Amino acid sequence: MKLFSSVNDVQDVPALVAEALRLKQDPFAYKQLGLNKTISLVFLNPSLRTRMSTQKAAMNLGMNVIVLNIDKEGWALELRDGVVMNGTTVEHIREAAAVMGEYSDIIGVRSFPGLKDRDEDYSEAIFNKFVEFCKVPVVSLESATRHPLQSLADLVTIEELKTTSRPKVVLTWAPHIKPLPQAVPNSFAEWMCRADVDFVIAHPAGYELSQEFTSGATITHDQNEALKDADFIYVKNWSAYEPYGNVLPGNEDWMLTNDKLGIAPNAKVMHCLPVRRDLELSSEILDGPRSVVIHEAGNRVWAAQAVLKKILESN
Amino acid sequence: MKLFSSVNDVQDVPALVAEALRLKQDPFAYKQLGLNKTISLVFLNPSLRTRMSTQKAAMNLGMNVIVLNIDKEGWALELRDGVVMNGTTVEHIREAAAVMGEYSDIIGVRSFPGLKDRDEDYSEAIFNKFVEFCKVPVVSLESATRHPLQSLADLVTIEELKTTSRPKVVLTWAPHIKPLPQAVPNSFAEWMCRADVDFVIAHPAGYELSQEFTSGATITHDQNEALKDADFIYVKNWSAYEPYGNVLPGNEDWMLTNDKLGIAPNAKVMHCLPVRRDLELSSEILDGPRSVVIHEAGNRVWAAQAVLKKILESN
Amino acid sequence: MKLFSSVNDVQDVPALVAEALRLKQDPFAYKQLGLNKTISLVFLNPSLRTRMSTQKAAMNLGMNVIVLNIDKEGWALELRDGVVMNGTTVEHIREAAAVMGEYSDIIGVRSFPGLKDRDEDYSEAIFNKFVEFCKVPVVSLESATRHPLQSLADLVTIEELKTTSRPKVVLTWAPHIKPLPQAVPNSFAEWMCRADVDFVIAHPAGYELSQEFTSGATITHDQNEALKDADFIYVKNWSAYEPYGNVLPGNEDWMLTNDKLGIAPNAKVMHCLPVRRDLELSSEILDGPRSVVIHEAGNRVWAAQAVLKKILESN
Repeated sequence: MKLFSSVNDVQDVPALVAEALRLKQDPFAYKQLGLNKTISLVFLNPSLRTRMSTQKAAMNLGMNVIVLNIDKEGWALELRDGVVMNGTTVEHIREAAAVMGEYSDIIGVRSFPGLKDRDEDYSEAIFNKFVEFCKVPVVSLESATRHPLQSLADLVTIEELKTTSRPKVVLTWAPHIKPLPQAVPNSFAEWMCRADVDFVIAHPAGYELSQEFTSGATITHDQNEALKDADFIYVKNWSAYEPYGNVLPGNEDWMLTNDKLGIAPNAKVMHCLPVRRDLELSSEILDGPRSVVIHEAGNRVWAAQAVLKKILESN
Repeated sequence: MKLFSSVNDVQDVPALVAEALRLKQDPFAYKQLGLNKTISLVFLNPSLRTRMSTQKAAMNLGMNVIVLNIDKEGWALELRDGVVMNGTTVEHIREAAAVMGEYSDIIGVRSFPGLKDRDEDYSEAIFNKFVEFCKVPVVSLESATRHPLQSLADLVTIEELKTTSRPKVVLTWAPHIKPLPQAVPNSFAEWMCRADVDFVIAHPAGYELSQEFTSGATITHDQNEALKDADFIYVKNWSAYEPYGNVLPGNEDWMLTNDKLGIAPNAKVMHCLPVRRDLELSSEILDGPRSVVIHEAGNRVWAAQAVLKKILESN
Repeated sequence: MKLFSSVNDVQDVPALVAEALRLKQDPFAYKQLGLNKTISLVFLNPSLRTRMSTQKAAMNLGMNVIVLNIDKEGWALELRDGVVMNGTTVEHIREAAAVMGEYSDIIGVRSFPGLKDRDEDYSEAIFNKFVEFCKVPVVSLESATRHPLQSLADLVTIEELKTTSRPKVVLTWAPHIKPLPQAVPNSFAEWMCRADVDFVIAHPAGYELSQEFTSGATITHDQNEALKDADFIYVKNWSAYEPYGNVLPGNEDWMLTNDKLGIAPNAKVMHCLPVRRDLELSSEILDGPRSVVIHEAGNRVWAAQAVLKKILESN
């Protein structure tokens, strides 16, 4: 594997999930594999889980880690070609990415969407330019439209905790006060559509995701119907795809509560975190026995480690 | 040891001091102890000495270190329970601490007081919530009311440099233009009250510390009397405990000078640093033979290393 | 070597260049040399290449690395002596540097000039105070007037790519919209004046560099004449030495283009980066076969590693 940007970069998804679960049992078994190898984690945006779990995954494999908050410790990057750089950007991504590649065996990149121009965001310009110019394997630490390390950890969690061979998994939209990217739901959807699960997406009218990610899923505006007999309920807010990046009025009643969980007596509740309590998801659920959100966050290490191992092995 | 938040977490203080001095002689003797263990150093506030010395102590023990400036590289944490998170905080400390615990064998936390609400600061809400929710051993990197790694390094320094079996140690208040926390003097006082020293606290009227830290100390408003024949003089500013967090007018003459040191011909001068020259402490002392402040800062490594070793051994 | 601040700290320049090229062939040959040694990289200003390449060089030698963005993770340092510190500076460089020295076997420091007061900048006050007070070997990560790790990498690149025994090397001024330091051209000039090259400096009238760096160079205002038959063309903007730190009007036609390169058919084009495309240097050159800027940036690792190796060996 030379690139980990989406589920489409993975040849054998079940094998990668199984690898992650094996690494969880024996985290340091491959400490020679990354010896004298350097991963650079480049953040254009804040991060907690991705930052810590990927760092830990790399160290478990014996790698050296360089963390670069390019926006704070470096400077603003120019992304457009063909412009005279007489403004506020200090370095072009062509040079910046190529130089980082000189110092790295693998590069991880986090870059959020602007949520202003859908075509620009969905072209994945920043992430793709890193891939194009850095000349070394690249791992997405969340890009404009996808968060594959999160989705792999989610699938690992479902595989680990499921009590039936083909669980029902429901992605349900949640309220928020700010417009959030579609990266996590897009990515979760495309991974679930490749997994052996019964996958349902529930959201208010107007929050349709792009079809390129949801093909094969059952999609409904009826949250109650969707939740029925669910095995896993994945709670997540996202802003509208059209009008792009908007928060539509209403829908506060989509917050998941214990009351609503009555219809799904065996369901475990997931969330990628950070979560806004009692806005997206009720405290009673987060603090109760149904929530697996911390366990899920813990699995971020093994997802990242499986991906890095795969990349190191194919170098 | 599962927690290092105050002197009360230490069963045998002299043994811990002796351990620090042994590690100073042989820093890398326990490099296998921390192998494959990760410490995460979480900063909600700036740090120089604590950041560098704890990092170095952990590396001396063979540990991996993750540094997280949560306020700058992450986002604002919500500390209150029972609020709808529809404001500026992005993640609740319940989730943030629990997730960090998933990636760490030990967590170090720095969190300063707000100096607005005494009850809130003295409840140590932030630090205690980290301890409660992260589920792994926690080391204070300075909390609202205490700075135990500093105090242990101070005691190590006194033990190392004393020329009499029971030295006279004087904590003397110093002027400052800004309200500073009481964490360092509180903590120094409670460690000295447990140590085999003759301990005196001198401060202007109005700068009384909370009695929970000073029980056993001689307390005076007469700086000159206090300094007499001192072996160690610990200079430190703090803001008033009542009215809480205030800088009281006057008292500029409390700055320590060579002139005042005449009454204590053998005294060594200590300060936790950073120090404002010629405001808190005169340059002539800092640049002269009496000052041991750099030596004291150097001992921060061995104090931290002794604490981390203790925690690793009891895991 | 106890100090690496300029070419004058290097006894045998060709030997250091040869060492860098040897390390490039066998990066991990000296991984025992830095075992249990710590380098602290202290940034008072942003950095990408220097930050990553020095970190990587140190790790290649088995060293531990502490990165400190003192301005963001710490606080403002006082540089002046004899002032009462009742303003915005929190710690004096005397204490800060001395304390960092306690935790470090080597310190790297980056500190840009203010470009307001030439005497102050050219006194190298900040860098020299670090050297004076930290008591351990210091490496410049770019100071007010020099960038020696860059210049060594530049010389390594020339040595590696030259096709004639004594190549013609031209430093040519480039336009910019902001006043930039003279550190890179100063440093490049003094290294080239010590190297076995035919060295020419071309710049518009008014951009004369200080003679202490250019002694031995041919200096001209005729860019076209300078470029003729050049083997290496080093493109760089700098602000005026007099009036200090100014951008003089005009001179936009000094940007290097393919057209101008006609007169130097074998020339390779260098730049220290970051470069502003189509302002300092045309995209057609950067994206074409003449540019060696990425290769040059890659050599930063081996330059830094040769310097660190030299320092470790003389400890």
